[in-house]
Amino acid sequence: MSLLVIGSVAYDSVTTPAGSRGRALGGSATYFSIAASHLTSVGIVGIVGEDFEQRHIDLFASRGIDMSGLEHAAGKTFHWSGAYSPEDTNQRDTLDTQLNVFADFEPTLSAVQRESEYLFLANIDPELQLSVLKQMRSRPRLIGLDSMNFWIDGKRAELDAVVSEVDIVFMDEGEARIYSEEANLVMAARRILERGPRAVVLKRGEHGVTLFDGESVFSAPAFPLDSVIDPTGAGDAFAGGFMGAVAATEDTSNSSLRRAAITGSAMGSFTVQAFSADKLANLTNSEFAARFEKFIEITGFEPFDNSTAPWRNS
Amino acid sequence: MSLLVIGSVAYDSVTTPAGSRGRALGGSATYFSIAASHLTSVGIVGIVGEDFEQRHIDLFASRGIDMSGLEHAAGKTFHWSGAYSPEDTNQRDTLDTQLNVFADFEPTLSAVQRESEYLFLANIDPELQLSVLKQMRSRPRLIGLDSMNFWIDGKRAELDAVVSEVDIVFMDEGEARIYSEEANLVMAARRILERGPRAVVLKRGEHGVTLFDGESVFSAPAFPLDSVIDPTGAGDAFAGGFMGAVAATEDTSNSSLRRAAITGSAMGSFTVQAFSADKLANLTNSEFAARFEKFIEITGFEPFDNSTAPWRNS
Repeated sequence: MSLLVIGSVAYDSVTTPAGSRGRALGGSATYFSIAASHLTSVGIVGIVGEDFEQRHIDLFASRGIDMSGLEHAAGKTFHWSGAYSPEDTNQRDTLDTQLNVFADFEPTLSAVQRESEYLFLANIDPELQLSVLKQMRSRPRLIGLDSMNFWIDGKRAELDAVVSEVDIVFMDEGEARIYSEEANLVMAARRILERGPRAVVLKRGEHGVTLFDGESVFSAPAFPLDSVIDPTGAGDAFAGGFMGAVAATEDTSNSSLRRAAITGSAMGSFTVQAFSADKLANLTNSEFAARFEKFIEITGFEPFDNSTAPWRNS
Repeated sequence: MSLLVIGSVAYDSVTTPAGSRGRALGGSATYFSIAASHLTSVGIVGIVGEDFEQRHIDLFASRGIDMSGLEHAAGKTFHWSGAYSPEDTNQRDTLDTQLNVFADFEPTLSAVQRESEYLFLANIDPELQLSVLKQMRSRPRLIGLDSMNFWIDGKRAELDAVVSEVDIVFMDEGEARIYSEEANLVMAARRILERGPRAVVLKRGEHGVTLFDGESVFSAPAFPLDSVIDPTGAGDAFAGGFMGAVAATEDTSNSSLRRAAITGSAMGSFTVQAFSADKLANLTNSEFAARFEKFIEITGFEPFDNSTAPWRNS
């Protein structure tokens, strides 16, 4: 299996300016794997409860996602409930979090999974992330990591240990600032790189993404959308598109990571255009190709040519 | 004269995380004209008081800026005092505003100025902006407009009248949202375009800039800087670089506006690297060219080629 994600599979109850949806399929591993499934073979390690519905298992199956690592435990599936601000969909309030079976999640990888070449540690307890790394038989070609303020504040030493072992750290701007203790984002990225990773991907929501890959900086805008239905999962779908593009092409060069960032941005943009993974799960190649083309159009500009170089004097 | 700006020439007292500076040369027309002066001939219409120092007149002169429209009035020069947040240099507090001679500013254009081909109405009372438009002998090839919340809230009808007459509206995200009454920025831009302008330039500070030119969207990141000394004037220098690039090349095509946005972003990035216009006024062609090159590097990516197109199925 080329790409493996360890993370949450959840039910979300979400209210956005566009409406409400109860018990929508959610979770970091869900969005990640569905996005990646368009690009490469991907497997999940996660846990669900007895209430997990057959139609959602069918959805994963229809995407060709390897669910052999999805544990079915006694109890209920992880449930998150939240509401997005009508004024600013970048702001959300968590109304309720019920960890349920996720509270006792102890990821155990199969022999095949331990040989995954591409690995993504979604946002879970850094101690569990470390245990996954220890289970790997050989060093994957590329390891991505996500985290959140809860772990940055509560388990910094453990998070430091994971960060030092991975290739790419995915964080939003606030997380990067808090983790690095630097207000300036270039300095924040530099501080994180000093801890070991090759690259930092700064997720900036509607402001796009910046990739710091060693000394190289790449910045891409978010896709301009005139309507956002549900922002949930955009960051996880971004990571799934990113890691999926790298795994699919087996290319970890800087050029490939840039393309991966655009691929991830496209996946994130589709995600927010519907509740849950409704749109993400049903994407076609032509929709993806058209959006990738649009990113080229949106970001392209020509240098001054010599005849019009405007500088007056130096 | 190819490019004319109507706006403020001021003294600023600024405190930033990098230090403090009293009576620093500032004002929208100052930053605009110094940035534009690297690219084209530019003139100012503005007003200063008896305290305006000869060394600052000399600075404008050294940049070849036409100061024949700078009125010297009895009284003191406009003085603004502000402080930037140590946590977030996008946030600033105005500590004091003394309009002084600017309170009675009534821009009067000379015969030559009335034939300017490129015109920028910096952030002043929309009634004064309208009076400038009425003084133009023929319609300039391109008119740019800046404004702020104070006028959006206080003189909306007058601002609407100006907006309907110009080609490009420059606003930051907050201004665009308030003026359009749309939270979504794509919708905000669309609403503003419906009022007449050809284009809206959304200034996003450290998040870059988005140009909505009719149906075309162009988005560019801010230049990633590991140190910001003084953010004052970045938006005005951006506009000066933008309008200067268009005027210098006499090209108002979409391709030219995209290049102008990069030129403006470069000018804004130099501005914040020093207090006042200290760095902006002393830029060399090679510094500008190197930064423009960097923008190409930072934004560039390659599409998937056919052999590695990663889509698995549709």
